[in-house]
Amino acid sequence: MSFIHNDFMLQNGTAKLLYHELAKDLPIIDYHCHLDPKEIAEDHVFEDITELWLAGDHYKWRAMRANGVSEDLITGKGSSKEKFKAWAETAELALGNPLFHWTQLELKQYFDIDALLTGENWEEIYNKANKQLKSDGMTAQSLVKKSNVEFIGTTDTPFDSLEYHKQISEDDTFDVKVAPSFRPDELYILSKEDIRRLETLTGKTAEHYADFLSMVEDRVDYFDMHGALISDHGITELIYQEAADEDIERIFAQFNAGETVSVEDKAKWMSRLLVDLGGMYHDRGWIMQIHFGAIRDTNTRLFDKVGPNVGVDSIYDQPKVAVHLNQLLNAMDVKGKLPKTIIYNLNPELNHIVASTVANFQSNEEGIKGKVQFGAGWWFNDTEQGMLRQMETMADHGLLMHFVGMLTDSRSFVSYPRHDYFRRIFCNFVGEQVEQGKFPDNDELLKTLVENVCYYNAKRYFQK
Amino acid sequence: MSFIHNDFMLQNGTAKLLYHELAKDLPIIDYHCHLDPKEIAEDHVFEDITELWLAGDHYKWRAMRANGVSEDLITGKGSSKEKFKAWAETAELALGNPLFHWTQLELKQYFDIDALLTGENWEEIYNKANKQLKSDGMTAQSLVKKSNVEFIGTTDTPFDSLEYHKQISEDDTFDVKVAPSFRPDELYILSKEDIRRLETLTGKTAEHYADFLSMVEDRVDYFDMHGALISDHGITELIYQEAADEDIERIFAQFNAGETVSVEDKAKWMSRLLVDLGGMYHDRGWIMQIHFGAIRDTNTRLFDKVGPNVGVDSIYDQPKVAVHLNQLLNAMDVKGKLPKTIIYNLNPELNHIVASTVANFQSNEEGIKGKVQFGAGWWFNDTEQGMLRQMETMADHGLLMHFVGMLTDSRSFVSYPRHDYFRRIFCNFVGEQVEQGKFPDNDELLKTLVENVCYYNAKRYFQK
Amino acid sequence: MSFIHNDFMLQNGTAKLLYHELAKDLPIIDYHCHLDPKEIAEDHVFEDITELWLAGDHYKWRAMRANGVSEDLITGKGSSKEKFKAWAETAELALGNPLFHWTQLELKQYFDIDALLTGENWEEIYNKANKQLKSDGMTAQSLVKKSNVEFIGTTDTPFDSLEYHKQISEDDTFDVKVAPSFRPDELYILSKEDIRRLETLTGKTAEHYADFLSMVEDRVDYFDMHGALISDHGITELIYQEAADEDIERIFAQFNAGETVSVEDKAKWMSRLLVDLGGMYHDRGWIMQIHFGAIRDTNTRLFDKVGPNVGVDSIYDQPKVAVHLNQLLNAMDVKGKLPKTIIYNLNPELNHIVASTVANFQSNEEGIKGKVQFGAGWWFNDTEQGMLRQMETMADHGLLMHFVGMLTDSRSFVSYPRHDYFRRIFCNFVGEQVEQGKFPDNDELLKTLVENVCYYNAKRYFQK
Repeated sequence: MSFIHNDFMLQNGTAKLLYHELAKDLPIIDYHCHLDPKEIAEDHVFEDITELWLAGDHYKWRAMRANGVSEDLITGKGSSKEKFKAWAETAELALGNPLFHWTQLELKQYFDIDALLTGENWEEIYNKANKQLKSDGMTAQSLVKKSNVEFIGTTDTPFDSLEYHKQISEDDTFDVKVAPSFRPDELYILSKEDIRRLETLTGKTAEHYADFLSMVEDRVDYFDMHGALISDHGITELIYQEAADEDIERIFAQFNAGETVSVEDKAKWMSRLLVDLGGMYHDRGWIMQIHFGAIRDTNTRLFDKVGPNVGVDSIYDQPKVAVHLNQLLNAMDVKGKLPKTIIYNLNPELNHIVASTVANFQSNEEGIKGKVQFGAGWWFNDTEQGMLRQMETMADHGLLMHFVGMLTDSRSFVSYPRHDYFRRIFCNFVGEQVEQGKFPDNDELLKTLVENVCYYNAKRYFQK
Repeated sequence: MSFIHNDFMLQNGTAKLLYHELAKDLPIIDYHCHLDPKEIAEDHVFEDITELWLAGDHYKWRAMRANGVSEDLITGKGSSKEKFKAWAETAELALGNPLFHWTQLELKQYFDIDALLTGENWEEIYNKANKQLKSDGMTAQSLVKKSNVEFIGTTDTPFDSLEYHKQISEDDTFDVKVAPSFRPDELYILSKEDIRRLETLTGKTAEHYADFLSMVEDRVDYFDMHGALISDHGITELIYQEAADEDIERIFAQFNAGETVSVEDKAKWMSRLLVDLGGMYHDRGWIMQIHFGAIRDTNTRLFDKVGPNVGVDSIYDQPKVAVHLNQLLNAMDVKGKLPKTIIYNLNPELNHIVASTVANFQSNEEGIKGKVQFGAGWWFNDTEQGMLRQMETMADHGLLMHFVGMLTDSRSFVSYPRHDYFRRIFCNFVGEQVEQGKFPDNDELLKTLVENVCYYNAKRYFQK
Repeated sequence: MSFIHNDFMLQNGTAKLLYHELAKDLPIIDYHCHLDPKEIAEDHVFEDITELWLAGDHYKWRAMRANGVSEDLITGKGSSKEKFKAWAETAELALGNPLFHWTQLELKQYFDIDALLTGENWEEIYNKANKQLKSDGMTAQSLVKKSNVEFIGTTDTPFDSLEYHKQISEDDTFDVKVAPSFRPDELYILSKEDIRRLETLTGKTAEHYADFLSMVEDRVDYFDMHGALISDHGITELIYQEAADEDIERIFAQFNAGETVSVEDKAKWMSRLLVDLGGMYHDRGWIMQIHFGAIRDTNTRLFDKVGPNVGVDSIYDQPKVAVHLNQLLNAMDVKGKLPKTIIYNLNPELNHIVASTVANFQSNEEGIKGKVQFGAGWWFNDTEQGMLRQMETMADHGLLMHFVGMLTDSRSFVSYPRHDYFRRIFCNFVGEQVEQGKFPDNDELLKTLVENVCYYNAKRYFQK
C-alpha cells in the first residue's frame, strides 16, 4: 500500500465516512495565501519541479539547513538537479515534520507518484515529475483548477496597481475567483516616501492625519472596486496604546517630515491606524485578519547573504497579549465599528489567550455567527498537533461549528493538499469524539459540522 | 442509547469499574462556589428552567453571542420562552464545548430527559422541565440534596452580615453544611468608604494600619464564628512587592484619606495584606485560596449595557508569575505562618509554573499531606482537556494522591454534574494509566487514589 | 507479572520490536550529568541504599515534603532506616510522578526486585538491597559498568584541578570514558576573589577584559587537555544585551575592584562573556550547552536550614525569550563562531520558542547535521509527557532524525534507567506513528531513526 492512501490520517471508521462522503470533494476557499497574481495572470509555466517546489519555499530551506546542506544548494548557485537531490535527501529524513507528509501528498496528488522521495530515487522522481510538468501542461492556472479551488485571496500592498488582478478577472478561460487582499503593513512605520506614493496614487495632499486616512481609504476603495473584501495585518508585537488626536497629528507630522518616531509613538500610531482601518473594513463589510507572534529575519548572516523571508524566523513569546488584544478589539467594538475579524496566533502557547479574547467580542445584532474568529493553525502551527490544539482550544472557548477552517498561507501552486490534510485531521478528530461518545452520533449534525468547517463557513463568512 | 449513559466518558474497563464501584456515589464537597446563601436560606423556587439555567450563567451567554444571538435574547428583554429557544439553538451547535456535555448531563440528572436539546425540540423540553420544576418541588434546597452534596462553601464579602448563613444553620429541615467563605477582594484597593464600613461593623477606629488589620481580624473571627474556614482571593495580576512598615503606614493613610495610590503602592499594599491575612488564616487553621490570571469586563459596550460579570473576560498571560508566586508563599512560610493554601491558575500555560512553585512550600512539621495545592481546573479550564492538563501537571510535580479534587465555582443549583463529569474524567485517566501499565493494577491503591481525589482528601483538608 | 516487565511503556507491536531489537542494548552516552568524579575515581562504596538513593536526590526530597514528611527524615538527623521508610511510604503514593517509575526501574535493574516499594515491605527491601550492595560489590564504578555506559560528561567549575579526572583516565581497570565539562557559571557575576583564583591558576594578571579572557581561555585549554569537549551554562534569566568594548572594560574594572555592578551591566557582561566563550568552544570543536528557565532556592526557611539545591526550585516564565535567544545565537553566528550548541529549556511552555529559534541557526558549511539542538526534556521535563512534548515540538520545527537524545542530569549512580525509560518512550512514540500510518513502515528508515536518537547521533555529535 502506498504511504499516501485513501485513508491516510484517518484512524477510525467514522472519520473515514466523514472524510470520504462529506469533506473530500468540497471545493477549496483559500482565503489567505501568497500566490503571485502575476503568475496566475500569465499562467506561469514552471521550468521544472525544483522551481515549483524549492524556488520560494523557506519551510524546505529551513529543513535542508538542519540537514547540514550547504547554502549553495538551498538558495545559492547550485544547479536545479543538485538542489532537488539535496532536498530529496532531507525529505527522506524529515519523519515527524509536516514537510514529510506534504511532500508525499503533493507527489501523489499532482504527479501520481507513490514512492517515498529519497536520496536514492531522487533522479527518477525528478525526471518523471519534470516530464509530467511539460506533458500535462501543469501551469499555474491548471494547478489551481486541478486543486478544486473556488476562491483565492492573494496578499497585496496598498500601493499595488492590481493590474494582474484585472487581467485575471478578464480572463474568460480561468473561472476561479481571485481577489486581492489589502495588507497595509508598510503603513505601521510610515516613511515619507510611502506618503508621497500615496499622494501620487490618490492625487491628494497629506498635510494632516485626516488627509492621510482619506488617501488610505481611497486605496481601500480601489481594492474594493477590484473585488477585495479581505485585509491582512502582520504584527510582530501586538501593543495597543490609546492616543490623543494631537498625539496622532504630531506623530504623522514627524513621519511626513521623515523624522524618527519613538517606540511609544509607533505603538500609538499603529493602534490608531488599526482602529481606523477596522472602521473602513466594517463599513464595507470586509473581513479584518490580524496575525501576530513572529520575529523575522533573526539570522543576520543569512539575511545579508540571501535576504528577507528565507526561513529564519521565530515564534515570539510576547507577554500581556491578552491586555492589548482585548483593548484593540474593544476600541473598534465600542465605536460600533468592529468588522468581522480573524485573529491568528503564531505562538501556540497563546491559543487560550486568543480563544478566550475573541469570545468577548462576538456580540452583534446582525446575527453573524462566529463574528470574531480564532483563526486556523498555520506557519509554525501548520502541523497535525498545531491544528488539533487550535481546534480543541477554539471548541473549549467558543463554537467549533462556526470555524471558517483552513488556509494555505503559501507561495506555492501545489500546496493545496494542506487543505486536504486539514480535512483528514479534522474528520479524524470529529470521528474520534463520536466513537468515544463525546459528540453525538447524529448524521445530520455531523454533516453540518464537517461541511461547515471544511467549506460552507468560509463561503458564508467571506462575502459582503 | 441515550447520549448520556452509564459509561459516558469512560473509555476502558478499569475506568468503568473505578467510577461505578468507587467514585459515582461519593458525596460532594463543593468547597468553592457562588451559590446565593439567600436562595438557599429561603429555599428559592424557580420561575422556570430559563431562570434556573440562563438568569446568571455567563458561560451560556458567551456561547449564545458566538452563535450570533441578539443581546435581547441573552440578557435583555426577551421573554423566557424566546431566551430558552435561543439557548437551545446554541446548545445544539456547541459540540466540543463543555456546555454541550453539561447541558445534557443536567437534563438527564435533574429532569431525566435523554433527548439532545435542539432548535427543534426546545419547546417540548421547555414545557417538560418546567412542569417537573413545579411538580417535583425542585427548589434550591431540594436540588442541593438531590445532588448528594455534603458541604457548600459560598463566597462572601468581609462586610456580609452572614444572616442567611445563620438562617441556613438554624434550618432543621436542611442538613447540608453551608459555610461562608471570606473573600476580601475589596480590600486590595481600599476605599475610604470601606474603611468606614469596617469601623461601623467592628466599633473600632482606623488610624493606623494596625487598627485596620485588627478590624479585618474581627471580621475573620466573625466569619469563623459562623463556620467559615476557607478564604478566597481573586487577583488579576499577581505581583509580590516587599514594603517597609513606613510605606504601608503611608499607603494606608492615603487610602484612609480617599487619596489616589500609585500602581507600585497598590502592589505593596496587596502583598502585605495577603501575607497578613495568610497569618490570620494560619492561626485559625483556615484554608487560603488564591486564583489569578483573568482580566475582566473587557467589552466596554456590554459592560455599559449589561454590567460586570457578563461573560466578557479573558485569560491573562502575566509574565514572571513564578517570581511573584514564590515570593508571596515564601513571605508567609518564612514567618512560620503559611496556611494550607490552594493556588488556582486560570491560564493553563502557567500550569507548570504553579505546580513547580507549590512544590517548594510543602514542607511542614504538622504532617499535612499536600499542604499547598495546585488547584483543580475551573472556569476557563473547566473542560476535559483542562482538567486532564491540571491532573497530569500536578502528578508530574507532586503527589496526585493528595489532590483535593473538583469544585464548581458556579452560581447554579444544577451545576453539580460538573463533579460527576470530573469523576468520570479522573477515573478514565486512572483507568488508562492502569491499562497501559503505568499505574499498578492494585485494587487497594487504586481505591485509595480514586476515593481520596473524589472525596476524602477534600473532607480531610477542609477542616480545622 | 512484575510491574516493570519487558514491555513496560511499550503499547504497540512496532514499539516492542524497535525497543527490543534496536534500542535496548545500545550503550549509553551520558553527556550531561552531575556524578562526582571523586566518587568515580575512588570507586566509592555506598554505606547503604539510603545513601545511594536519598543522600543527594532532591527530587525525592520534594516528593517527601509533599507527603507531609518531617524535614528530619528528609535531610535531617533521622536514621538511615527511618529515612528509607519515609521514602518508601512516599514512593508508594507517587502514582503519576516519574519517581514512581524510576524507583521501580532502579529496584528491578540494579537489585532484581520486582515488588512495589511500600510502607509495608520497606524493611524487607531495605535489607535485601543493602545485602546486595555489599555482596555484589555495587560500587560507583561497577554500577556505571553494569549500566552499559560508554561516556560520562561530568560538570566542573573552571577552577577545578581535574585531579580526579586524571586519576580516572589513568585507572586501567575502568574503561568508561569520563570527561570533565566546563561550567563557568561563577563567571557571570564575577567576584574579585574568583579573578584572583584565576590569576593564581594561570600565572597571569588581569588588568583588562582581554587579560581575563585569556585566563579563561587557559582554563578551557586545561579542560581540553584533560579530555573535555563539552561546556554547560546554567542561566536563570536569558538576557542578551549588546555592549560597547568600553562598557565591558568598565564593568570588568568594577568586578576587579570588588564593586557592585548594576543589573543592566550584569546582562551586558554575561552576553559578552557567552559570545566570547562560544568563540573559544567553536575554535576547539567543543559543544556549548545552555539551559535556562529555573529560579532556585526560593524557600528561604529550607535554604537557611538545609542549604542550596534542596528541591525548592521553580520553572520560570521569563517573557521575550525568543528575542534574547535569537540575538545570542546570532551574535556568535555572525562572527562565524557559533559552536555546536544545545539549548535546553526548563519551561515546557517555551518549547516552541526554542525549537523555532534553533532552526534559525542550523546553516553551516561543514555539513553538520542538527548543528544547533533543541535539547531533551530533563529536570522538570523529565517525565513521559515532558519528553513527548519535546520530541513532538522538535519534529515540528526541525529534524527529529538528528536529535542527540537523552541525558540524566543526575547525581546518582543508579539513574541510568532514565535512558532506558527514554528509549521505551521514544520507541513507543515511533511505533505509534508507524501504526497510525504517519511514519512509513520502512525497516531501514526506522532502524536509522531509533539507533540515531538513542545512541549514534550523540556519538557523532560529541566528538571534535
